[in-house]
Amino acid sequence: MIVTVTPNTALDVTYTVDELRPGAVHRAREVRHRAGGKGVNVARVLHALGVDVRAVVTAGGATGTAVAADLAAAGLAADVVPIAGETRRTTTILGSGGATLLNEPGPELGSAEWTALAAAVARSRPEVLVCSGSLPPGAPADAYGRLLASCPSGSGPPATWLSILDTSGPALLTGLAGKPTVVKPNIEELREVTGLEDPVAAATELRRAGAGAVVVSLGAEGLLAVTPAGTWQATPSTALTGNSTGAGDAVVAALALGLSRREPWPELLRRAVALSGAAVLGPLAGDVDLAHYHRERELVAVRAQPERES
Amino acid sequence: MIVTVTPNTALDVTYTVDELRPGAVHRAREVRHRAGGKGVNVARVLHALGVDVRAVVTAGGATGTAVAADLAAAGLAADVVPIAGETRRTTTILGSGGATLLNEPGPELGSAEWTALAAAVARSRPEVLVCSGSLPPGAPADAYGRLLASCPSGSGPPATWLSILDTSGPALLTGLAGKPTVVKPNIEELREVTGLEDPVAAATELRRAGAGAVVVSLGAEGLLAVTPAGTWQATPSTALTGNSTGAGDAVVAALALGLSRREPWPELLRRAVALSGAAVLGPLAGDVDLAHYHRERELVAVRAQPERES
Repeated sequence: MIVTVTPNTALDVTYTVDELRPGAVHRAREVRHRAGGKGVNVARVLHALGVDVRAVVTAGGATGTAVAADLAAAGLAADVVPIAGETRRTTTILGSGGATLLNEPGPELGSAEWTALAAAVARSRPEVLVCSGSLPPGAPADAYGRLLASCPSGSGPPATWLSILDTSGPALLTGLAGKPTVVKPNIEELREVTGLEDPVAAATELRRAGAGAVVVSLGAEGLLAVTPAGTWQATPSTALTGNSTGAGDAVVAALALGLSRREPWPELLRRAVALSGAAVLGPLAGDVDLAHYHRERELVAVRAQPERES
Repeated sequence: MIVTVTPNTALDVTYTVDELRPGAVHRAREVRHRAGGKGVNVARVLHALGVDVRAVVTAGGATGTAVAADLAAAGLAADVVPIAGETRRTTTILGSGGATLLNEPGPELGSAEWTALAAAVARSRPEVLVCSGSLPPGAPADAYGRLLASCPSGSGPPATWLSILDTSGPALLTGLAGKPTVVKPNIEELREVTGLEDPVAAATELRRAGAGAVVVSLGAEGLLAVTPAGTWQATPSTALTGNSTGAGDAVVAALALGLSRREPWPELLRRAVALSGAAVLGPLAGDVDLAHYHRERELVAVRAQPERES
C-alpha cells in the first residue's frame, strides 16, 4: 500500500473573494474547510484515482478534531496520531488574481509524539512511503531521514525503491540521509538547497547526497527527471491556467503510483505530468480533473537527454 | 452599566507577514487569536479605561469556546449566549502595506437564539446599550431595532438617551426604528444608506428616521456630530499613522462613556477623537495608547457649525 506521512498536518481553509486587495476589508463569499498538508493532498489525489492509500497524520486540539472528521467524511483511510499542540491552519484566498496562501508554522511535536508517528508509519507497512511537506517548528533536523528509515525491512522490495520525499530547505537536505527513492523539489527549491543554477547538475548533486532519483518540477515546462536509468524531460501538450497549488502534490501522487507498479520512467513521467495538469484544473488542492488526466497521458512528450560527464 | 451586544461575535485571528503579495505563498511570522466583533472591541477599550462594562456575545462550536475562554482570560465581564452554529473567524493580515481584513459571514441564529440574546441584554439592565457590527446572515431585518427596544423601561433615564448603534447598510436603516440615542456611521456608510453627498444633510435624514444624534467618522478629519443640541466638527491635533481598524470602535466606546456621564457634546467629542487616535496607535483592535488619549483630549479642536435651514 502507498502510505503518506504528514508531520505538520493542517486544516486548509479556503476563502473566495472577488479580488484580494492589500489594505482593504474583504467579505468572504465562500468559506471551505478541509484536512490538508501535502501528504493529505497526495492521499486525496490517489483516493480519487481509486488507489489504495493510507494517510498518517498528526492531530491536536479543536482544529485536529476537524481534520480527523474531514478525513473520515472524505473516506480516506487515516492513522491519526494525537498531539498535545493545536493543529495549524493554512489559509488560501482565492480571488481574481489567483490563489494567495498564508501558512501557520504549526505546533511543535514532543519526542514521544515523533516516536508515535514513526510507529504509525511502520505499522502501516508501506510499499511506497511518501514524506511530504514542511516539518513542524523544532523538529529534529533529520526527522524525515528517520521516518524514511523507519520503513520495516522485509515488507517489500528494498527501501531505496520505495519512498518519495517532497520538502524543501534543510528538511530536504537532511532527509537525503534516509535514502529516498525519489525527491521532488521544484526548480527554485532545487537551486536553493544546492546553490547551483543548472538543474541537471543540481539534481546530480542531490543524487550523490542520497537521493535515488530527482524529479524537478519546472512549472508549465513539465518535469525533469535525473534517475539511475537516465535523464528525461517530460513536457505537457498544452499550457493550463488554473489553481497550481496542488500540482506538486499530484506529481508526487503519480510518482507513488508509478513506483508501486514498477513503471519505467517515461511512463511514470507521462502519468505525473498528466496528473499535475489535472490538479491545476481541479478547484481545490487534492481535486483532479480525471478526464484531462486520462487524455493527457497519451499526449505528454518525453525526451531522453544525453548522458553528461560528471 | 454600559452593555455591548455583538450578535455576530468572532474570533479575530491576526497574522503578521513581511508583505502581503496577492498570488504568493506567505509564512506567518506570528499568529494571535482573540475574541472580536465590534461590540467586544468596544468593551475591551472601556475595560482598558477602567470603566464597568459587560459584553453580551454569541458563541458556538470550538471557535465559540475559544472566544469565551479569551474573554475570561482578558477579565472582560461577558454574557455568553450559546448558539448551535460555529462562531465565525475574522482574519487580519498585518504587513508592510497595512492591515488586510478577511471576514467570514458567520452562522445564522435561530429564533430561540435571538430571543436568548435579547433576554441576556434585558437581564444586564444597561444604562447605555451599544449595538455594534454586522448582523449574522439570515438575521431578522429589524434585529437591531428589536434589541434597542428590548432595553427594560425604568432601568434608567429615557431609552432615547441610552443607546448607540454602529452598523451599516440595511441593518443601520432598520435599526433606526429602535430610536438609538446615537448612530455612528463613517462617511462612506452614511452616503451609502442615504444616497446623499452632503454629510450634514445625510445625518439630518437619519435623525428624521429615528436617530437621536448622528456622529460621522471622517477618518483623519475627525468627527462630525449632528445632534438635538447643535452641530459640531471635532478635529484631532495631528494626523496619526497606525492601525485604523479599531478607531471606530474606540469612538463608540468614548461615546458610550460620555453618554453614561451625561457629558455635553463638545466634551464627548473631544473624548471620542482622542480615544480614536489612541486606538490607531494601539497594536490590535481594542488596544489603546492611554498616554495619547489623555494628552489629546486637551488638544482636540471642536467647532460649532451654524444651524442650517432644513
